[in-house]
Order: sequence, then C-alpha cells, then structure tokens
Amino acid sequence: MRLTVDNINPHIVAAKYAVRGELAVKSEEYRAQIAKGEAGDLPFSQVISANIGNPQQLDQKPITFFRQVASILENPQLLDNEDALVNHLGYKTDVVERAKFLLSKIGSVGAYSASTGVPAIRESVAKFLERRDGYPADPSKIYLSAGASSGVNTLLHTICAAPNTGILIPIPQYPLYTATLALLNATAVPYLLDESKNWGTDLETIRSSYEKAKADGVDVRCIVIINPGNPTGASLPEEDIRAVLEFANQENLVVMADEVYQTNVFVGKFHSFKAVLRRLQEENPGKFDGVELASLHSVSKGMVGECGHRGGYFELVGFDPEVEANIYKFVSIMLCAPVIGQCIVELMVNPPKQGEPSYELYQKEYDGIFNGLRERATALHKAFAEMEGVECAEPQGSMYLFPTIKLPEKAAEAAAAEGRTPDEFYCMRLLESTGICVVPGSGFGQKENTLHFRTTFLAPGTEWVGNIVKFHKEFLDKYR
Amino acid sequence: MRLTVDNINPHIVAAKYAVRGELAVKSEEYRAQIAKGEAGDLPFSQVISANIGNPQQLDQKPITFFRQVASILENPQLLDNEDALVNHLGYKTDVVERAKFLLSKIGSVGAYSASTGVPAIRESVAKFLERRDGYPADPSKIYLSAGASSGVNTLLHTICAAPNTGILIPIPQYPLYTATLALLNATAVPYLLDESKNWGTDLETIRSSYEKAKADGVDVRCIVIINPGNPTGASLPEEDIRAVLEFANQENLVVMADEVYQTNVFVGKFHSFKAVLRRLQEENPGKFDGVELASLHSVSKGMVGECGHRGGYFELVGFDPEVEANIYKFVSIMLCAPVIGQCIVELMVNPPKQGEPSYELYQKEYDGIFNGLRERATALHKAFAEMEGVECAEPQGSMYLFPTIKLPEKAAEAAAAEGRTPDEFYCMRLLESTGICVVPGSGFGQKENTLHFRTTFLAPGTEWVGNIVKFHKEFLDKYR
Repeated sequence: MRLTVDNINPHIVAAKYAVRGELAVKSEEYRAQIAKGEAGDLPFSQVISANIGNPQQLDQKPITFFRQVASILENPQLLDNEDALVNHLGYKTDVVERAKFLLSKIGSVGAYSASTGVPAIRESVAKFLERRDGYPADPSKIYLSAGASSGVNTLLHTICAAPNTGILIPIPQYPLYTATLALLNATAVPYLLDESKNWGTDLETIRSSYEKAKADGVDVRCIVIINPGNPTGASLPEEDIRAVLEFANQENLVVMADEVYQTNVFVGKFHSFKAVLRRLQEENPGKFDGVELASLHSVSKGMVGECGHRGGYFELVGFDPEVEANIYKFVSIMLCAPVIGQCIVELMVNPPKQGEPSYELYQKEYDGIFNGLRERATALHKAFAEMEGVECAEPQGSMYLFPTIKLPEKAAEAAAAEGRTPDEFYCMRLLESTGICVVPGSGFGQKENTLHFRTTFLAPGTEWVGNIVKFHKEFLDKYR
Repeated sequence: MRLTVDNINPHIVAAKYAVRGELAVKSEEYRAQIAKGEAGDLPFSQVISANIGNPQQLDQKPITFFRQVASILENPQLLDNEDALVNHLGYKTDVVERAKFLLSKIGSVGAYSASTGVPAIRESVAKFLERRDGYPADPSKIYLSAGASSGVNTLLHTICAAPNTGILIPIPQYPLYTATLALLNATAVPYLLDESKNWGTDLETIRSSYEKAKADGVDVRCIVIINPGNPTGASLPEEDIRAVLEFANQENLVVMADEVYQTNVFVGKFHSFKAVLRRLQEENPGKFDGVELASLHSVSKGMVGECGHRGGYFELVGFDPEVEANIYKFVSIMLCAPVIGQCIVELMVNPPKQGEPSYELYQKEYDGIFNGLRERATALHKAFAEMEGVECAEPQGSMYLFPTIKLPEKAAEAAAAEGRTPDEFYCMRLLESTGICVVPGSGFGQKENTLHFRTTFLAPGTEWVGNIVKFHKEFLDKYR
C-alpha cells in the first residue's frame, strides 16, 4: 500500500500551522518571481514578510559582539593571528577572550555536546536567571534546546500521556501549541484572553474553561502562558501571574511559561513566572512548594533576533527527578541542540558588561534595535487607529500587533464563495494587492464572531504601513 | 496530580537509547572529576568516549575551507576588510567567493530560512546527487534537516499511523529507530543482519520477518537500511541493495536508506539506493515506478564530522504530493533547520574543486582523515583478533566495529546479580577499569545468545586499544 494522505499519520494531517501556511507559501512564490525579474504585472515590487517574527530577514542587524565571537568559534585558527584580528579587523580583546573561554568549554562547535547542552553554558544561564530574578537557579535544571519550539515539543511530549490529556492554551495563541497537541493526539483546552483588557489573562475565564474540560472527562495537566503575548503583544502585570500560579497550585497544574519575548517590553516591566513563584513561596511558606514550572527562552527574539541559529533553553522548577530523567532521555535521542546556537545563548545571557571593550557598541546596537521596534509599533498602532472598523490594543510587548477588523457582510459572502474564512480572504487580498504577508486571526484562534490578523512590526520604513491603510480603504469600498 | 514516571507519556518511559544512557552519563562524570583534578584513585587519567560517533570530540580537526567560510557567514563584516582576510589571515579567494554566494542566498544565518531549507542549498544538494548517481535529482524533493536524526524523526512520524504500523528495522541497529518507534507507539519489525556474511542483509531473513509480522496483524509499511552499517560497519554490495528494492517493490514498502556513512567506505564502493533504483527502473521499464524511497545524509559523519552543527538532508523519490505537503507542514512547525548547519551541508556537497585555490589543502585534510580512520580501524580489528573469545568482522565502512564477545558463565552470573545483561556488565567494568566508554550490544539489538559491544575507531593513538586488550584478559581471568 503506497502512502497517501488517507493512510499516513492522521495527526499530521489534522495539525494546522498557519504561520507557514498557504499565505506564506504564496508570498515566497512572489518573492522568487520578483528576484528572477519576472514580477510582470504584480502591483508591488517587494514582498513584506510581516507574517513571521524573523528580525534578520528584515531590518534587524545582528549584534556585532555575538557574531564576532561566533566567527572565531567557527574558525579558531583566527586566534593564530590575534594581532591581525585586533588591529586589522577591529575585534576587541573581550571578543577574543570570550571565544577562548567558550572554546575551552566546548572543544569544537562541530562536536556533539552533552544532550542537555554544554555544562558551562548551562551555568551561565543559571547565573543570568539569578541576576534577573534575585533567586538561585540550578544549572542541572536547565536544558538547552534548538529554539524554544524544540523545548515546547519536549515538554508537551512528556506531559501528554493519552488523548484525554488536556493542556490549557490561551486563545489567541502561537499555533505551535495547538499543532503540537494535534500531533500528540492530546486535547487543547482553550481559554480566551481578554481583548478589552489589553489581552490580559482573566482567571474566571481560565477557571471556567478548566471546569468545563474536567466535566467532559479531560485530564487537564498544564497551563500555557505566553508572556509577553504572541500574537497579542500583551505584557502581563504581576497580579495576573500571581493569579495563574495560585490557580495552578490549587489544581496541581504544570505551568509552562513561554517567555521568549521577555526583553521585548515597551510598557511596564517584564515579570518572570520564576521570580513571582519564588516570591509567593517566600510569602507563604510551604504553600507553593509543589508547583511545577517550566519556563522557556530563546535567542530568536528580543534584540538578539538569531532565529536561524535555533538556540534556546528551558528551566524546570519542582519537577520529579524521574520525570527529569525521562526528559533527559527524550532530548538525548536527538543528540543535542546546535552547538553554535548554544554559544549564542551564552552570549545573550552574558553580554558585555559596562567597562568592557565591547560594551559601548553592544549597548548602542541593543538600544537602537529596541527603540526602532518601539517606534514602528507605535507608528503601526497609530495607522490602525485611523482605519475604519479596526481596533488595536496598545503595543505593550513582543513583536506583534493583533488588531480586530470588522468586515462588511459582502466580504464574508465573497470569502465563503472561495471557501475561506473572512479574515483569510482579507489577508489573501492584502497579499495580492500590496505584497504584505500577515496571518489571519483564525490561524491563532479568536473569539467567535470576531476577526483579526497578526502583523509583526519588524519591517523597516513606513511606506508599507501606508499601503495597508490604502488597501483597507479600497477593500471596504469594494465590499461595502 | 503532579507529574510522575507513572503518569507521563508512557512511550517516553518505554523508549530506550543506550548510546547516551547510563554508561555515557557515568563516563561524563569521570571526565568532570578528572577536569576538576579530583581523579583520586581512578585507575585511569582520561576518558575515551568510544561510545559515540563524535569525531571532533576526539582527534578529528574540522576541514579548514568549511570553517573559514562559516566564520565569514557568522561575521559578514569580515568582508569589509577582504585584504586583511586574504593577506593576514590566509583566507583564499574561493573562501571569500563562496561566503559571498551563500550570503546572497540566505541573507543572514540569523534569519529563519524556508521550512525545507534555503532553496539555493537544496539546488546544490540536487547537483551533488546528480554527480554522485548519474541521474537527475529534483531540488523540490530535498528537505534540509537538523542532522539525519531529525529527518528520520520526520519520516517515521509521517509513515506511522497506528500502533500496528510496522517498520522493518535491521538488528543490530542504531537505536534512534527503535527509540523513535517506541515514542510513536508503532511496531518495530526486526530483521537480523548476517554476522557470518560481514553483517550483510539476507533477503530470506527479511522476508520471513515480514511474513511473520503480517501474520500477526502488523501493517508493515517501510524497511530501514543503514548502509554503511551502524553499529556493524558493513558496506553493502549492489546485489543486496537490488534485492531489498525488489522486495520493497513487490510488497509496496517505503525504503528508508540511512546513508550517513556514505563516504566512510574502506572496502569496495558505496552504492546509493537512489542510483540502484534508477538502474533497476532503466532495466525494467515501468516495473519499479511505484517505489517510494527516502534517503538521508548528514554533515555529522564522513570526513566532515560536523555533528555539533546539526546539518543534514533527505531526498524523497516516488512520494505522493499530498504526503509531501504533510511532510512540509510537519517540518514547518519546527520552523527550519539551523541555517549555519544548512550552509555546512552546501559546503559538504560542493567542496573545492581541482584547480581552485582551496583544493589542495581540502584534499590533503580529507585524505588525512580518511587514512587515519582506516588505519585505526585496522589496528583495532587486529587487536580484537588477538583477544580470546572475541571475533570481529572486517572493517568495511562507517566509524564502528561491533565484535562478538564470548564471556564465561561466572561473568553472566555476576551480571545477573547486578541486574545487568552480561554485555552491559562487561562494558561497565571496562569503563571503570580503563575510562573507555563503549556501548553494549544490547543497546542495538543482537541475535539471541550472542554478546557484542560497539566501539568507534575515532580515538587517537593506540594506547587505549592496548588497554582494552589488557582489561579483557583480566576480566576473563577473574570470571573464568
């Protein structure tokens, strides 16, 4: 029997992953067409990939310190001529020192590391967490991964034991979660975020989703929180995090905190689940000791933006050692995370310090990226405010805006005629008219009878923002 | 309910992966002890990791051309000072050209690529396959992956649809296969390789395993072949490959050809499944058109040895386009393979050519590694020949020897008292006495009532080989 879509793994067939779906594929076709000079009658001359948080595909330059160190790690023979490196190529001495340190710990970036990552890098991550949170961190509980996606994959694989295993997932959510649960044939238990409160978590909503799932026979084991939010751009206040931890403690739920946007915060301050948990434990001796927390981070986002290097880590708190042993076994089957990506993790968590030769440039680059992101978020938010039928929460964090759009009935009919949801239809027309690729809200989940799209605010310039405004007006005029 | 080993995913608990199991963990503890100067009364002063094919952890130096290009990819600013690069740091002009070419195709190694890999790199792989096999290859059927392990994971995930999906697996095998099938809750259908014929495939054995599984209600869909063999070191003659393809064609089985050791061949010549399939198709018009073949390769092995970069690819032949679309979706959920690893794939399949500035050094390094591996394989094989109760097939390919060991009855009793199989017991004592870490045959599967271990022949020097010989004699004397 040959393989067909009817006999292969039905869970792959069932899984959905819109971020790289039809729209993304079509946008790549346009890009290839333009690159070959075959743009022909396309009404645009470039494709703007606002569908995916891929900073270096767009404007964002890599941080010089990171890449200088990486270049030496790739070619340690550069150290045979340190003078030329420093005098002719402008490498500072702390670049050379860091590369030597990492090489002394890894041997070669071409060798497999230990399954959970290079021990010295796990120690660096622990020290970073201690500085960030003000509480101890244990290197043996840190697992280096190929981006946070791979960490999420490991954790969900471990937690999901049967089709009725339930995982509380925010809606809207980054579709990695629902896709992975579909692959695992486990149950996503959606809880709605509150758009009227800047996409914050609402405990009553979470509780009622939980109770309903339990009543349906679902064995709910875990709650996922994405903070700052993807696709929402929300940055949670400490109260929300406390409430989630209280609830998880009460109901014995594992807390999975996806904190990959922890440095992309424009309003207020990032509160890590780990720090808030430790505070709760201090304030209530004994009460929160049983909480199981897995928190994830990545080199792909923030001012680092090194997606292509596939680096990240997760930290476990409160897990049973035998469960940890099985997580170890699971990650060891894939051998190890990319070693140069592990090194980028080390550089991210341990950047040049004040007074060190590379500090000034590092800080300048970092601030430049941060301010650029904030400015573009604000510009885009302002543009949305001027568009008829569009409402958008204040940009607080991450790399995304997730506006609500109200579309005329006729547009919904035209969409149905194409077999599409109205938001898909809208995003497809946007791509065809402007070359701008965004992701329809249905790819992330949205409250019934609402429509959204997700756009990154990574693309440089403002012309494309104007093109969205213009398209939107024409679209409304056409289907009014 | 807190997570425990009794309620997490039972398929992770059931999976076994000895290559990084108890012995490997213990060897890393010894290594850390020695590094901290706490060797104390250990009877050895260094750990020899012969348990894993990790060339650059041991003697193997990276190929200079690959790493020079990679250093520019990591830090393109080096190109701002091309003169210094060429005149002070010894980079040849073809290094600079290749880096510029790759940068023009990828943009940045820090950006996500397309889910199946950078199009230009897939084209390079296709050209390589055309040169290697003498038959066309289609870039759109090539999927870049994070090492071959990730490719195997993708393919088995797709093919396995239910617990009774069966995959024919050689015994002994690289435990990635049984571990992944355990995770997928699918059925491994073992077929024994023939140790008496240098670990070749025996069609009658394969057929009888297949028939037996079918009779038991197993839906056998695929046959895995590892050529050159891991752990066996066998290199299959063309007849064996033809026989497997004939059988797969007859029974409609997908052929999964794990060819990561294709350049590690010391006896005869490597025959790719793709080339042999194309020849069969030419010789028998129409007859073999339905064969589905997936063949895998990696940057981790061969003379490249870049395991830590997690680069590889697989090529699909004869797959249904809708099945391919689901494979695309599956890999897109993890976004993309590490981009610098993808670039190492490009360098591997398209190395410097005769007449180009880097060719001479490349060829010298390549030949040096190849000859070193062959010499060490021969020396190890010779040592085994001198050991009482040890028999070992001629080293033909890959990086491993897999000798049979006959152990005294008393050793089996001592092992049982420790709750270990005799081969585990033997390997544990070897590690404790000599610091040499090998993997017991039970980690790969072995014919009933036989015992083996797998050792790489990557470690430099011959002293460690002598230590095995000495240990073996003492072990036999003790348990005689």
